Amino acid sequence: MRKVAIIGVGMTKFGEHWERGYRDLVIEAGVKAIEDAGLQGNEISAGYVGSMASGSLIGQEHVGALIADQMGLNPIPVTRVEAACASGGVALRQGYLAVASGAHDIVVVGGVEKMNDLDTNTVSEILGGAGDEEWELFLGATFPGLYALMAKRHMHEYGTTEEMMAAVAVKNHEHGSRNPYAQFQNKITIDMVMKSKMVADPLKVFDCSPITDGAAVAILATLDVAKKYSSQPIEIAASAQASDTIALHSREKLSEVKATKIAAQKAYEMAGVKPKDIDVAEVHDCFTIGEILAIEDLGFFKKGEGGKASLEGKTYLNGEIPINTSGGLKAAGHPVGATGIKQAVELTWQLRGKAEGRQVDDAEIALAHNVGGSGATAVVHIFKKV
Amino acid sequence: MRKVAIIGVGMTKFGEHWERGYRDLVIEAGVKAIEDAGLQGNEISAGYVGSMASGSLIGQEHVGALIADQMGLNPIPVTRVEAACASGGVALRQGYLAVASGAHDIVVVGGVEKMNDLDTNTVSEILGGAGDEEWELFLGATFPGLYALMAKRHMHEYGTTEEMMAAVAVKNHEHGSRNPYAQFQNKITIDMVMKSKMVADPLKVFDCSPITDGAAVAILATLDVAKKYSSQPIEIAASAQASDTIALHSREKLSEVKATKIAAQKAYEMAGVKPKDIDVAEVHDCFTIGEILAIEDLGFFKKGEGGKASLEGKTYLNGEIPINTSGGLKAAGHPVGATGIKQAVELTWQLRGKAEGRQVDDAEIALAHNVGGSGATAVVHIFKKV
Repeated sequence: MRKVAIIGVGMTKFGEHWERGYRDLVIEAGVKAIEDAGLQGNEISAGYVGSMASGSLIGQEHVGALIADQMGLNPIPVTRVEAACASGGVALRQGYLAVASGAHDIVVVGGVEKMNDLDTNTVSEILGGAGDEEWELFLGATFPGLYALMAKRHMHEYGTTEEMMAAVAVKNHEHGSRNPYAQFQNKITIDMVMKSKMVADPLKVFDCSPITDGAAVAILATLDVAKKYSSQPIEIAASAQASDTIALHSREKLSEVKATKIAAQKAYEMAGVKPKDIDVAEVHDCFTIGEILAIEDLGFFKKGEGGKASLEGKTYLNGEIPINTSGGLKAAGHPVGATGIKQAVELTWQLRGKAEGRQVDDAEIALAHNVGGSGATAVVHIFKKV
Repeated sequence: MRKVAIIGVGMTKFGEHWERGYRDLVIEAGVKAIEDAGLQGNEISAGYVGSMASGSLIGQEHVGALIADQMGLNPIPVTRVEAACASGGVALRQGYLAVASGAHDIVVVGGVEKMNDLDTNTVSEILGGAGDEEWELFLGATFPGLYALMAKRHMHEYGTTEEMMAAVAVKNHEHGSRNPYAQFQNKITIDMVMKSKMVADPLKVFDCSPITDGAAVAILATLDVAKKYSSQPIEIAASAQASDTIALHSREKLSEVKATKIAAQKAYEMAGVKPKDIDVAEVHDCFTIGEILAIEDLGFFKKGEGGKASLEGKTYLNGEIPINTSGGLKAAGHPVGATGIKQAVELTWQLRGKAEGRQVDDAEIALAHNVGGSGATAVVHIFKKV
């Protein structure tokens, strides 16, 4: 398997794009990434795109072909992959495999979702399709409810408090206020989170990531090819994906995401690094408890100590391990299929030293963690400055 | 890149499975394929599944994880790919790449769709998402309408007649009557097709493939590994995919599917064979005109002569080039995501000499052709007896 690097990235602002469609978002992000890589579109020989629910959200399936068409990439194969909210991470992994394998030298990977065209209840039901439709969604379980169960169990086992979860949201909004691509750029306080409307006890509105439109794109190449194009290629040192039961009620434990642990272990081995070597990470905080689970399951903090670490500020930009400098899903927004690629874009900027206003000093190694559903899919990538 | 072979196949009967769900169909096909390969599930290290519209059809996204779970394959990565009606073919290609690349030794690929749980109009609208939602579906174009335009153009340019198209349906029903897995096992006549209800002029009900539930699964392995498991491994000698504009109105020509021509050319080069070397083929006959376009674009007949060849019986089981011995999409049925894998299952049986009642004598080389939408994606695989 060959070494693979990111040579170009681009994304739209995340937020509410009422005046623009799905394809407009992809084109903007794609053109930026191609320009950033300094190449011509016809040098790309394959593409992968992550999109969760375009069929239900905008009536459009077959989005691989749509994107090949709109980006002028015909007749190359562009393949859509779907793994719920991990669709972007899985698309990145397929692109990585396509280049690592020798099948392709330069590949484009993207993620996109247009979520604001329907009302919130309908979108919540569509997102519920990331769980077990027959045994969760059909019986009334939506994602705030499923993550609330995980939060309650974590509180019960480890004494995690609502304030600890709120601290995750406060920190991510602080980071988001420094990111011009973030949906929310306002700062909030623990008190504001605690007083916000209850969604599914103990999760309040400010514990939840928003509904978002957006797209993100990255261009991958073999490390040899990469050096011809980019003065700052970013190596993909590891790419790992694992699965667990789709229904939460079938899991061994509710207070951890086993798929994250398995994927992380594989990724650390593949990259030859340990959790303490990671300088900056983007993790899947669809709900604040999600970030607490992630920083424990990824090995940044011991099991049960993620909440306390968050409250103590250890995950801030200048803390022990900066988490979600983009603002995470919570503040940067969560256009579900795009999130996994946005994480790679943010970390590319960090490793290039170009994350203006939110730069982690001397960042050399970064980790991206993308989850589908309540943890049935987890994807972990590790990036290194070349 | 390593050589890859099919070592096990399985499928459900295609048809109306009112009493069974999406996951039941996958399990049946998956267990049969694993048994056919003579291996244990835990020897499989990755999976790919093609499914077009599970979100809209049954409210379930994240079907890679669902299938990993239901087939007891956790925690391996199982990735869903979607390319409209070419989803199965693209899943097969991703599995092929995963094994050829050295990333995995044994991989499962599947395709599945449950389409009968909604009314026909709703399903037609969902399938319309395989085209351009903004410029085709939204303005009223459904797939019978789009293929009718292609048929009219082909008739205009080459003198193709409605009887020639009807002959495709008659032949595929004849073949389907010999296939116990086919949805329709009744024989029909040209007169019956001609007198059937008009759907979109010139396409009548009997020119159209039906709405179908079903699943198909194949197990892939490196050729070296394959020989340990199977006395009759079938080599995947070529795998190629190409794209074209998603909207029909943007194409250079309506009387050909350019993506098929490009994918076929690549596949023939990769396998080192020519169209005349193919002993049996499964092609994408979502509508009868689709088969006529396919047998021309794949090079079995000259452009414009596919209709005449069909009427003359050249594509029958004992004809010049047997096409769709399974009954094709028309008679075997078309559970959209499953079709591309079903083609591989049928051709595996043919190359093993086990297609009882519809066996092509001395079949050594076979071709599968799977199309997404009106031709925005085409996937061609070539299989060889080892």
